[in-house]
Order: sequence, then C-alpha cells, then structure tokens
Amino acid sequence: MKPAAGILYGVGLGPGDPELMTLKAARLLSQADVVSYFCKAPQKGHAYTIVSTIIRDDHKQLPLVYPVTTQYPVDDPRYETQLHDFYEEAAQAIAQYLKKGENVALVAVGDPFFYGSFMHMYHRLSGKFTCEVIPGITSMSGCWTNARTPITWGDDVLTVLPGTMDKQQLTKRLKNTDAAVIMKLGSNFPAVREALMVAGLHDRAIYIEYGTMANERILPLSQKTDDEAPYFSLIIVAGQGRRL
Amino acid sequence: MKPAAGILYGVGLGPGDPELMTLKAARLLSQADVVSYFCKAPQKGHAYTIVSTIIRDDHKQLPLVYPVTTQYPVDDPRYETQLHDFYEEAAQAIAQYLKKGENVALVAVGDPFFYGSFMHMYHRLSGKFTCEVIPGITSMSGCWTNARTPITWGDDVLTVLPGTMDKQQLTKRLKNTDAAVIMKLGSNFPAVREALMVAGLHDRAIYIEYGTMANERILPLSQKTDDEAPYFSLIIVAGQGRRL
Repeated sequence: MKPAAGILYGVGLGPGDPELMTLKAARLLSQADVVSYFCKAPQKGHAYTIVSTIIRDDHKQLPLVYPVTTQYPVDDPRYETQLHDFYEEAAQAIAQYLKKGENVALVAVGDPFFYGSFMHMYHRLSGKFTCEVIPGITSMSGCWTNARTPITWGDDVLTVLPGTMDKQQLTKRLKNTDAAVIMKLGSNFPAVREALMVAGLHDRAIYIEYGTMANERILPLSQKTDDEAPYFSLIIVAGQGRRL
Repeated sequence: MKPAAGILYGVGLGPGDPELMTLKAARLLSQADVVSYFCKAPQKGHAYTIVSTIIRDDHKQLPLVYPVTTQYPVDDPRYETQLHDFYEEAAQAIAQYLKKGENVALVAVGDPFFYGSFMHMYHRLSGKFTCEVIPGITSMSGCWTNARTPITWGDDVLTVLPGTMDKQQLTKRLKNTDAAVIMKLGSNFPAVREALMVAGLHDRAIYIEYGTMANERILPLSQKTDDEAPYFSLIIVAGQGRRL
C-alpha cells in the first residue's frame, strides 16, 4: 500500500533570536521528519543558524542551495530563468520526501508569507500536497523592538518599502506616510539615504543590521557615515501619531 | 534595605492562538510575579484569553480596565482626557509592583510596538524602570497566514492603513500601493469597502475577523454582504509582484 503523502510545513522562525520562535514552530520542528532550509553556498545561512539549536541527529536535513547568481545582473532575463529553474528543482526535491509520506518543515527567517522564499515553494506544492504555514515574527518587528522604538501610534499609516526601489519612487512614498520601514538595503543604501533626506525623514531614521542576531548593530542613520549595508539591514522611521 | 526595582516586560502574545506565542514570551510569563492585561469590563478581553492557558494560581493578576468611553465621541477632547487619565492611573498601578521589586509582565495581543496599548505604558515607565519588550506575531500576519495568502512578493510595497481614515485619503493610499492591510474596521467598514471599490481593489480583497482565534472567519470581501465588522477584523489585499 502506498503511504499517505507527508505534509509540508512552512515554519516561520522569527528574526534571529531562536527564543523568538513560536511554541508551534518549535513543536512542529521537533516532530518533522525532514528539516529543509534555503542557503547560499558555502554558508548554511541564517535560517539554519536559528534552527540549529533545535535540530536533532535523527532529523534528515534538506539544504536548498541557491545557485550563484552574480554572473547576471538582476534585470537580465537569465537571472530570472536561473532562479526559476532553481525553485523548480527545490520543489521537486521537497516533493520526493512528501511522496514517501515524510513530513517536511521548510524553515524561513521572519514570516514565511512576508517576502519569503517559502512562497515560491508554496506556490508550486500547495495544490499537490497538504501545506500548513506557521507565521513568524517579522525581521522588521524584531528590529523596531530592539531599537526600543514603537513604530505606529493611533492612526499612523505604515509603509513597507523595498530598498531596491527607484529613488524618485521611494522619495514620493516616503513623503506620503507617517511611519516607514525600508527593507533589503544592500547596495542601494546610498540611494535610500538620499531619498530619506529629500523626504525630510533622515533625522528620524534608525539603521539596524542583523536585527536580534548575535552581530546586531543599531544606530541613528545620522551617525552612519559609510555607504556599506548588508542585505540583512533595514531602516525604520517611527510614526508620530497620537500619544495619550 | 530597599529591594531592587522589578522589571516591566511588554510581552507580545501574537494574534490569538496561544501556540503562536514565542518561547521567550512563555518563559517570561512563567517567571513573572505579576501578569497584567488591558481589558474592557465586563469582559476579561483577548489578551487574557490567550494568556489564561499559562497563568498559574501563584501569579498575581493586575487587570487594567478601560473606562467606558462611549459617552463621548472619539473626536471630543473629553474622550482623550479620559483615556489619558486612565493610562496615568494604569502606569501608577504597575509602578506600585515594580517599586516593591516584583516583575510585571504586561501582555499585549499581537506585537507590543505595533499600534499597542502597551506603548502608552512604555512611554510613561521606561525612563523610571527597566523595561524589556518581547515582539509578537502581529494580527495581520496571523490573518494573511490563515487566509493562505502570501502578502508581498519581490519588490511589492505594503501599506498598513487604519480603517478609521477618511475615505478620500484611504482611496488615495490604496491606489498607490501594491499590497495593503486595513486594520481596525469597526463602524468604518462600509467606507473602507467603498474606498476599495474606487481604488479597483475590491475583487482582490479578503475579509478576516478574529484571525487565529476560536471564532475566526475568512471570506472574499465580495462575499460579505452586510455592513457589520467588529473592531478585531481587517482586510488584506495581496501584492502581485514577481513570482519566480
């Protein structure tokens, strides 16, 4: 008799501190047959670092190793094709375990449905297998907490912007919000800083890299003088809504 | 000798399901001398419902009971004064325990620094006592997860809007975003629905009430025909960014 198919769990791990995992995430990870995670060779990546506190010897591990994409610029169609093919293969690798009746926990830094790579697996596998998603604390939430900065008060509008956005667009959106989070800074950081200056928000902005991780660094943007920002960095601007 | 002052913990409980509490929240609640929560008489409220699975007989409880505010409209200055006075008294009540050296865990549905009542206590007490904040999964995150709807893809912009906003403003912001969450619907729900129609997003919108709680209800907005929405309801519109 063919075994019943396994379940795919998309498990949010939270922003970095393993203790910011939910009770449900910890339980499902403990029960899973296979723990799977995205990473870039040669590192095992942030998701693995967080989950390594829980993984046991009898867990099977399925690393999903991103191809080296630096050979093409992000707007080159070959970049997209390469990533598309990688996600196809990753989905097939996960499906092999599910078909055998094994439960797979695919872990995600932050929240799986908020800019998560997991979404590309969910998109491919949720029509064929039972999938359950466990939300996680977003990186931005871990960042504003550790920066000791309430992000939205009263009727504040919050806008979450990718740092990859064009500078004019970014400036326009920043002018039109009460609170803002700018994610994925990386090489676009100098442009983001200029947009914040033009929008008049530079003095209120806080820069955070590796939020809640061991190498966390938090400082007012005005005190950051260099132009280097890792991908795992973001900027927050708190709202100034009604304080009672 | 005077005892060292206690620590105020702002503990995010997540959206409703007690298992979506973090490991850290569960540990700190277990260790706290006093568990405090906001509520509206005669109910004990959502925060208490979530935390009731953890509270022990030897925990002291400090309910912070909101005054009945329905006697004044929200834009009446007396409404603000009444709430201000309430927060002052609540902060004093917490401070009494902290001064005695007892640790107080003030619990919050969702994330304490994201539209949280806790912020009004943090604002008053963090200069005088040691405060530590534990982020929680936001209600919106619990909602998009249970609606099985990835909210942001690729370079999508997400805008979080309070449902209390003026209809014209709301429409303008909705037209200018990729993904949206509209919180705190309540009596403003019909206006929110109209704004979504004008912005051309009505057909993509999903309505969720009591997300991840026992009485959760999720349906496409187009299938919701009545005009009633509780305060604990929200609408999500997922982005349509790059799927690889």
